[in-house]
Amino acid sequence: MTQTPTTSPVEEKIYVSGTIHKDVRVPMRKINLRPVEGQERSLCVYDTSGPYTDPMAKVDIRKGLPRIREGWIEARADTEFRSGDVTSALKKIGSRMPEMDHTARRALPRRTVTQMHYAKQGTITPEMEFVAIRENQNRAILRKRFEELTPAEQERETRLQGESFGAKLQEYITPEFVRDEIAKGRAIIPANINHPETEPMIIGRNFLVKVNANIGNSAVSSGIDEEVEKLVWATRWGADTVMDLSTGKNIHETREWILRNSPVPIGTVPLYQAFEKVNGKIEDFGWEVFRQTLIEQAEQGVDYFTIHAGVLKDHAALAKDRVTGIVSRGGSIMAQWCSYHNKENFLYTHYEEICEIMAAYDICFSLGDGLRPGSIADANDAAQFAELETLGELTKLAWKHDVQVMIEGPGHVPMHMIKENVDKQLECCDEAPFYTLGPLTTDIAPGYDHITSAIGAGMIGWFGTAMLCYVTPKEHLGLPNKTDVKDGMIAYKIAAHAADLAKGHPSARDRDDMLSYARFNFHWEDQFNLSLDPQTARKFHDETLPKDRHKGA
Amino acid sequence: MTQTPTTSPVEEKIYVSGTIHKDVRVPMRKINLRPVEGQERSLCVYDTSGPYTDPMAKVDIRKGLPRIREGWIEARADTEFRSGDVTSALKKIGSRMPEMDHTARRALPRRTVTQMHYAKQGTITPEMEFVAIRENQNRAILRKRFEELTPAEQERETRLQGESFGAKLQEYITPEFVRDEIAKGRAIIPANINHPETEPMIIGRNFLVKVNANIGNSAVSSGIDEEVEKLVWATRWGADTVMDLSTGKNIHETREWILRNSPVPIGTVPLYQAFEKVNGKIEDFGWEVFRQTLIEQAEQGVDYFTIHAGVLKDHAALAKDRVTGIVSRGGSIMAQWCSYHNKENFLYTHYEEICEIMAAYDICFSLGDGLRPGSIADANDAAQFAELETLGELTKLAWKHDVQVMIEGPGHVPMHMIKENVDKQLECCDEAPFYTLGPLTTDIAPGYDHITSAIGAGMIGWFGTAMLCYVTPKEHLGLPNKTDVKDGMIAYKIAAHAADLAKGHPSARDRDDMLSYARFNFHWEDQFNLSLDPQTARKFHDETLPKDRHKGA
Repeated sequence: MTQTPTTSPVEEKIYVSGTIHKDVRVPMRKINLRPVEGQERSLCVYDTSGPYTDPMAKVDIRKGLPRIREGWIEARADTEFRSGDVTSALKKIGSRMPEMDHTARRALPRRTVTQMHYAKQGTITPEMEFVAIRENQNRAILRKRFEELTPAEQERETRLQGESFGAKLQEYITPEFVRDEIAKGRAIIPANINHPETEPMIIGRNFLVKVNANIGNSAVSSGIDEEVEKLVWATRWGADTVMDLSTGKNIHETREWILRNSPVPIGTVPLYQAFEKVNGKIEDFGWEVFRQTLIEQAEQGVDYFTIHAGVLKDHAALAKDRVTGIVSRGGSIMAQWCSYHNKENFLYTHYEEICEIMAAYDICFSLGDGLRPGSIADANDAAQFAELETLGELTKLAWKHDVQVMIEGPGHVPMHMIKENVDKQLECCDEAPFYTLGPLTTDIAPGYDHITSAIGAGMIGWFGTAMLCYVTPKEHLGLPNKTDVKDGMIAYKIAAHAADLAKGHPSARDRDDMLSYARFNFHWEDQFNLSLDPQTARKFHDETLPKDRHKGA
Repeated sequence: MTQTPTTSPVEEKIYVSGTIHKDVRVPMRKINLRPVEGQERSLCVYDTSGPYTDPMAKVDIRKGLPRIREGWIEARADTEFRSGDVTSALKKIGSRMPEMDHTARRALPRRTVTQMHYAKQGTITPEMEFVAIRENQNRAILRKRFEELTPAEQERETRLQGESFGAKLQEYITPEFVRDEIAKGRAIIPANINHPETEPMIIGRNFLVKVNANIGNSAVSSGIDEEVEKLVWATRWGADTVMDLSTGKNIHETREWILRNSPVPIGTVPLYQAFEKVNGKIEDFGWEVFRQTLIEQAEQGVDYFTIHAGVLKDHAALAKDRVTGIVSRGGSIMAQWCSYHNKENFLYTHYEEICEIMAAYDICFSLGDGLRPGSIADANDAAQFAELETLGELTKLAWKHDVQVMIEGPGHVPMHMIKENVDKQLECCDEAPFYTLGPLTTDIAPGYDHITSAIGAGMIGWFGTAMLCYVTPKEHLGLPNKTDVKDGMIAYKIAAHAADLAKGHPSARDRDDMLSYARFNFHWEDQFNLSLDPQTARKFHDETLPKDRHKGA
């Protein structure tokens, strides 16, 4: 382990090196606590913030982040640089990043460059070792073996044992376990070969529950700077991936700046941009413009695509008596397209061609739930579940192409109907990772949907969702600003962690226990530093008891 | 039904009259919506805000609220005015409320004046009819019978049917059902004969899930004005009861002002004041000072008392290996007392005398969980459950005296261990209402414990908790200010409503469905007005789309 010294004594950014792949360096945040009985104490926590929080790193957003995966990708010798028409088109659109030199790669002809492909061949990639180390968070150092525990500690471990509902949580994650999970399709590492800046992370129900943050401008809203700032801000508060849902001006350029400066995987909904290209005219929309958009975004480096291939022509009828119809924008466009052209969804009919594109860049499917319920009233209905069955079929087809897949889920679901979603998804999609929005457990609190949905998110994470898509207080009302992004992130880090605790994820409780110990012993600074948001905790404390002496022993 | 006209066209305060007791007038908030196909539409919602939101009412906090229950209490002819030493003592302390004329009542000798007593005798009191009307929220008017529904509506009702875990939810609450539930101890109406200002409400798992807000000053914090303001503010956002946990100066006077101005039941922890009287000296503390404090607060009109009678001398040993020991202030004082005096808890040994006092004023027990866990690590441990078993025993003893009882519950519990708490409480305490704080589902987010605990509160409410005690963002860090009170209240109204939906409470979904309909049809004003916090929803919307035309069709 190499340690990067920092100016702050309470917090350090450290890097843990790989053993199979020596150039793997996994970032962690080490929180140093006050010594107890002369003994140094610290806790390592998962760190999604990238080089931005490394005092030794010099970040220049005009140059983009270091391309930590470039050597790994090159060493595999299965890709080539592209100089075809699409790349030229990109250059013409012009990312105003003068100091940037991003030349797109793609797989050599007849080669598949996905993590799933390597995994099936038995290869442990640097990406796999990276996520194995990352998931463990140095817990081997902290964690005593059960037989070394005192009787009181043993009683506690037994009493607090989790309920994982069939998830196969590991005491210690090995690179081989990661490889096996990816080969089986139970986990994914979103890592486009054109996004070498990303620090690999894994999404699967046998790993820590992850959180995605949506950002993105619209025709009436923010600019590029603001979106890059939101990206960095979201990862600062723990976003594991970020979706850029921009639909405004400069959509391509915005995405370029985001990708080059993102330490986390980036997801998009290519349909949005493709549909803009035909000025939102359903009659002009179709496979060709969509395919071209896919390739453009693939070459930019998007790590996962939401693809609404499960909204079939016959499904629309199932949604006709709903209170809130079809609320997914992608779902609504595709339903309209099927109806207007009286044809089956082209994303479904061209699905294997999409798989081939995904395989050539290692882009993950995020199979969209275009028929997700938009209200409690429409939860778990025939339309939603018909689509889910189609997504199960598409999952197996993607796997045939060695393409990684996760499945999007609802939405709006009352508490008592949440588990049915997870059970059905696991069954239909053979344990492909589930990626859910919320769900909101009631519709009566616009302005507070980070809370209505944190309740559902905690529960669905416990039941088996691998990644939670955050909901901000602005949901249904407007686009999130920085404050909203933070509020959404904190609510979802809470939900994800509560889920890890309930599943019985090894060591999830360490942070709770250390914070509780600090709280009970009035070690205020430790309590603040161990919390998800030390500044706010400290500020709230100081409002009532501002004196320094209240923070010490 | 009589309607009080208001100046606001979207919102009206209405009163629904009783049929058994003609002078029963139950307040509701009627939200008027835009007509659809020429048809007027509205929704009545539960209204805890008292006369403060009635434009026809003149409230002068120096005079206190109208004593709506005074006539009902007098008509029962089982009470007398007190002029004894305690009341004189009170006058000496002096509530600086010059225009107030509060003379304390108590039961005539050998009479029991509790709602449970009347219920067991077969009497439907005005309080019982009041709560029956209140729980129904005019839903008989809204609700179509199942056979009148369209096939799509029928499908929806079947699909969204709740899971009540054995709760006996009624399509329509009758006064007789209320009486029966109270007689069986499954529900309580906290209504001290000395708090005639209170608008009766019911706590029980076969009724709507309720929310309590804690307020109260401390030695270092706010004054009387601020506490009365917080009370009114909390009820404005839906607090069903309020606990005054003041420990600062003028504790008695603060309580007097709160009681005389509170439309909701007030709870206290008499132990706090009793212990102040002996300057926190455990050696001087005991039954006599406690008894005197109980009577003082009883005569002031406190509706329920937290009594830590379940913390037995032998229980402390069970908590010795905990990460966070005993965190309940009351529990900790009583454990200390038992240890110092080497005697059994005097609240336990004098329990039947306490019952007699409670019976003479109709004060409800809120049997305190002095050994509740203070951290995830200590959840559901032997200490907590030993106390719960004692509380079960004490419940039956209180019922023997016809005293109403609810049981306090945790605290800090990971999601997978929440249900065990409810199941065990229902079993030990023969379905006496459960009243839980949170629970927090993780300890890592001080500053956001309204969210860590809203997750647990939603779940525990679904499983059967009758009333949720809110947690504000300041929990563990300081005393809540007005913003915190509101944030805590909204988070808990969300949790309570999500629980009602999941249980399948009749008509709970009406508000969700109407809001969803408004949302889908871009009836922005209806969406705002149906939400828990219209101002915030409107403000968030206007931040992105400030133009008026975005709010209409």
